[in-house]
Amino acid sequence: MKIDVKEAAEFLRENNDYLILMHTSPDGDTLGCGTALCGALQRLGKNAKAVCPDEIPHKFDYLFEAFEKQDFEPKTVVCVDVADTKLLGDMKNVGDTAKLCIDHHVSNVEYAERTLLEPESGAACEIIYYVIKELGVPIDKAIANSLYTGMATDTGCFKFSNTTPRTHRIAAEMIELGADFMHINYTMFDMKTQGRIKLEHLALESIRYYANGHIAVIFAPYSMISGIEGIDSDDIGALASMPRQIQGVDVGICIKEKKKDVFKVSIRSTERIDCSKIAQKFGGGGHERASGCSFYAGTIEDIAKKVVEASEKACREAGII
Amino acid sequence: MKIDVKEAAEFLRENNDYLILMHTSPDGDTLGCGTALCGALQRLGKNAKAVCPDEIPHKFDYLFEAFEKQDFEPKTVVCVDVADTKLLGDMKNVGDTAKLCIDHHVSNVEYAERTLLEPESGAACEIIYYVIKELGVPIDKAIANSLYTGMATDTGCFKFSNTTPRTHRIAAEMIELGADFMHINYTMFDMKTQGRIKLEHLALESIRYYANGHIAVIFAPYSMISGIEGIDSDDIGALASMPRQIQGVDVGICIKEKKKDVFKVSIRSTERIDCSKIAQKFGGGGHERASGCSFYAGTIEDIAKKVVEASEKACREAGII
Repeated sequence: MKIDVKEAAEFLRENNDYLILMHTSPDGDTLGCGTALCGALQRLGKNAKAVCPDEIPHKFDYLFEAFEKQDFEPKTVVCVDVADTKLLGDMKNVGDTAKLCIDHHVSNVEYAERTLLEPESGAACEIIYYVIKELGVPIDKAIANSLYTGMATDTGCFKFSNTTPRTHRIAAEMIELGADFMHINYTMFDMKTQGRIKLEHLALESIRYYANGHIAVIFAPYSMISGIEGIDSDDIGALASMPRQIQGVDVGICIKEKKKDVFKVSIRSTERIDCSKIAQKFGGGGHERASGCSFYAGTIEDIAKKVVEASEKACREAGII
Repeated sequence: MKIDVKEAAEFLRENNDYLILMHTSPDGDTLGCGTALCGALQRLGKNAKAVCPDEIPHKFDYLFEAFEKQDFEPKTVVCVDVADTKLLGDMKNVGDTAKLCIDHHVSNVEYAERTLLEPESGAACEIIYYVIKELGVPIDKAIANSLYTGMATDTGCFKFSNTTPRTHRIAAEMIELGADFMHINYTMFDMKTQGRIKLEHLALESIRYYANGHIAVIFAPYSMISGIEGIDSDDIGALASMPRQIQGVDVGICIKEKKKDVFKVSIRSTERIDCSKIAQKFGGGGHERASGCSFYAGTIEDIAKKVVEASEKACREAGII
């Protein structure tokens, strides 16, 4: 059943003993939602905890200042920024009992008893903001930090197409309420580990251009990734956006081999190319401008050859080359 | 004489034939101010042109859609985002006749007959926004693009400490008025030339760490810079922020030799170190967290040794090492 902000707030006021679930491979938005909502429910006098099935990268530690650890038997499961219980890993079964889901993914499969879905929200944290307002809980610095984090990270610091005037206006209010936006933005966008710097250096070294510079490929074989200490999946994931940032590149490809013989290919494109179609040729998929596919055999060179050929074909069909 | 927004608008309504000057080494804020104000004055029926003494990088071309080229004899000089006429290069003399200056630099020397100064503005474009509102000129897409560009670039896409709730709220309005924020942000922050990619790769290769990782140095000697085709001063300038982004680094140093034997040293620091004091030891200066100095002799290794020693001393005094 689809519900609105008012109904979600009503439900949250009427129940208690909340277990708030955040998705696996946690990002700033799911963690921002979970910690902000948990803090708000506790301030209403409710029992609440926010849990993620995966380990949470340390850079997000500050978000957990928004609520206190409480010891109680959870009764009411709420999922935030979780489009499908498949995204709950080991906690899928718990997610399947969800009474409420608050989300902004158009792909939400409406698994929960009640779904508050606003696909036009740049970040799910924007919806949580309105729920907290409706609950009448004053937003303090810690909750403001959580909500700001979700909005800034999901919109690439207000750069991506999902940013709306509303995102900016809520961000303005969060800064007024004490959100430590400088620290948050530095941690989320600018800070890099020594390992990340080394990885980026090797990745840049590996770049090859095709189709007159309209296609660029980064090669990150197992030998490269395994040779660098102190990098995490965030660092490796960030390689995906690098080739597309190069001027003139319409299809940016990154081939990562985190585990031996498991190749993840990320494809990013300009509006001139629908790169989900390229990924689909290899059993993958995704969005028009960001897609991916996997290979479990072959050499990185062979895989690059195949994906580049498919990309060249797409460029030819689009009249780019 | 210091004036307010109302008085500035009054002055602009009463006069005509405007020459709007933007500072040398033009950035998004001075260009955003100049083009937006020029467009607004033309929409009021005035003659106006916006001029920069330096060549303007092509990535800013779209800003010049905000006004039409007009042929007239300028009578009224207005400087925007120009703290001192020294920043007008060949046009210093023209700047010295300025009737009005609109700026946000606390260091403004008040050279103009009238100065509208708001140091609390994240970008000078925020002040121009209020002046245009006061003039009663409706903000169209082109002017919105100019104002958005100034705000986004001067605040590092809403990341830096100079961002205020007001910056976000004006940005929200500019998006509503049609600002093409996605394209602007991609062009200003994400797009890199192949030359820039090569430069970053070599710069990352050159990184050396000192003081247990609290100091990092990037070396960009003449042999490196001159060997890369198609890079501009923007690309080289961007190296300055790289070493400080590394986790654990309190002093990030970048030594650039754009011309043979002319070494520009950029120093960036965390809040634990006042790096203007390090630069001052070598005849330079700047802000607490961003400073610089120059050397006109010696080898890049010698210069690095001196600046690293001074930085180590600062780290010791701050109790970091």
